[in-house]
Amino acid sequence: MTETTPQTPWTATALTLFPEAFPGVLDVSLIGAAANRGLWALEAVDIREFSRHKHRSVDDTPSGGGAGMVLRPDVAAAAIDAVQSDWSGQKRPLIYLTPRGRPLSQARVREWAAGPGIAVFCGRFEGLDQRVIESREMEEVSVGDAVLAGGEVAAQLLIEACVRLLPGVLGDPASTEDESFEGDLLEYPHYTRPRVWEDREIPEVLLSGHHGQIEAWRRQQAEEITKKRRPDLWSRFLGRKENAR
Amino acid sequence: MTETTPQTPWTATALTLFPEAFPGVLDVSLIGAAANRGLWALEAVDIREFSRHKHRSVDDTPSGGGAGMVLRPDVAAAAIDAVQSDWSGQKRPLIYLTPRGRPLSQARVREWAAGPGIAVFCGRFEGLDQRVIESREMEEVSVGDAVLAGGEVAAQLLIEACVRLLPGVLGDPASTEDESFEGDLLEYPHYTRPRVWEDREIPEVLLSGHHGQIEAWRRQQAEEITKKRRPDLWSRFLGRKENAR
Repeated sequence: MTETTPQTPWTATALTLFPEAFPGVLDVSLIGAAANRGLWALEAVDIREFSRHKHRSVDDTPSGGGAGMVLRPDVAAAAIDAVQSDWSGQKRPLIYLTPRGRPLSQARVREWAAGPGIAVFCGRFEGLDQRVIESREMEEVSVGDAVLAGGEVAAQLLIEACVRLLPGVLGDPASTEDESFEGDLLEYPHYTRPRVWEDREIPEVLLSGHHGQIEAWRRQQAEEITKKRRPDLWSRFLGRKENAR
Repeated sequence: MTETTPQTPWTATALTLFPEAFPGVLDVSLIGAAANRGLWALEAVDIREFSRHKHRSVDDTPSGGGAGMVLRPDVAAAAIDAVQSDWSGQKRPLIYLTPRGRPLSQARVREWAAGPGIAVFCGRFEGLDQRVIESREMEEVSVGDAVLAGGEVAAQLLIEACVRLLPGVLGDPASTEDESFEGDLLEYPHYTRPRVWEDREIPEVLLSGHHGQIEAWRRQQAEEITKKRRPDLWSRFLGRKENAR
């Protein structure tokens, strides 16, 4: 083996009330195998261990009334501070997963993957006291416009998106380029054998061997699907094209 | 116990190449407890078992060239057809998780939760042959604008979002109302005890006891954050307000 493993691999720390939810899906396939090879590391930290309240309580009723419970600022901050003190001055983004956040983007995932790692705070209940979010300068991120029972599954999604970009994790580095979202276009449709399946044929151009025509067809398909399904990406794409002139 | 459990509970079927990724995060907390109480059921079906090719192969090279591999239409369709034949005519949405899909929405989650269940096809490799998507009328859904190693974690996210809406799953039904995305606004910020934390105080209005003022403040906060972080939701919100006149 000529492969060398860095001394401290890219590390994802999940702050959670349900550490047993990890590694979950991050344990399987190439992502799990890469952890076993030391290409990245996962750490799940139990927020509850940082409570100094009765019965290790972590939440309290919302100020101003309303349903549900809110995660206390003192408990959350104690957990965050303990995690950050282990970083020996290293700067890692502290992400808070919440429907109120800015939508996850592949551009941000690339930045996270290029750094030393991330810490992800998984919300539960109604949410986290706003004062911790501000004082600890947490980056609020939303994953998909749906409400979850907690941030754990969103954290796993975000970590998987980062880890697949780390060097050596995927077999073929080319397969991380030319994907949806890279370049603001959705991807073209895929076909494989058999050539005829249930009377449906693979589009003829793909079997032509004309690389230029294949590329033009794929480009046109990518533009059409983006225009139809993602007007938001489409206008960003047009804007960049305009600027590039 | 006066609670009665329906004979066939709401069921999520995951079609996957990595059945060991399930239940994953769906096993913990109220979501996992609800499965144990029979309020919903999870079924993970191994796509590979439906391959009749050598070495149970499921993929082949992309027609027209390019990196990666594509999931074969015959194998995918065999798995889908076997799953659907178990539904005895019951209509359940067949969802394909792909970055090319329409973004997940809380409105669609509500519809899925109101039905008998869902089947979720988890993509891997470069994707699924386009002909299966069309012939089996799969609904293409995207969860967050990031590229994943596979659809498993997105499937878990989507299933969790549905299950928390099922009757009896969450302790307090009120906490599924008044959330982000319900009504096109992000949620207002939360606060709880202590009243002063690290010299930061809870906004005074929340401690005033004036319900009208609290509601007005929360509404204003919700509008501000939505305008700032989610211009897309904000214009939809304004559009509905306009139509309601």
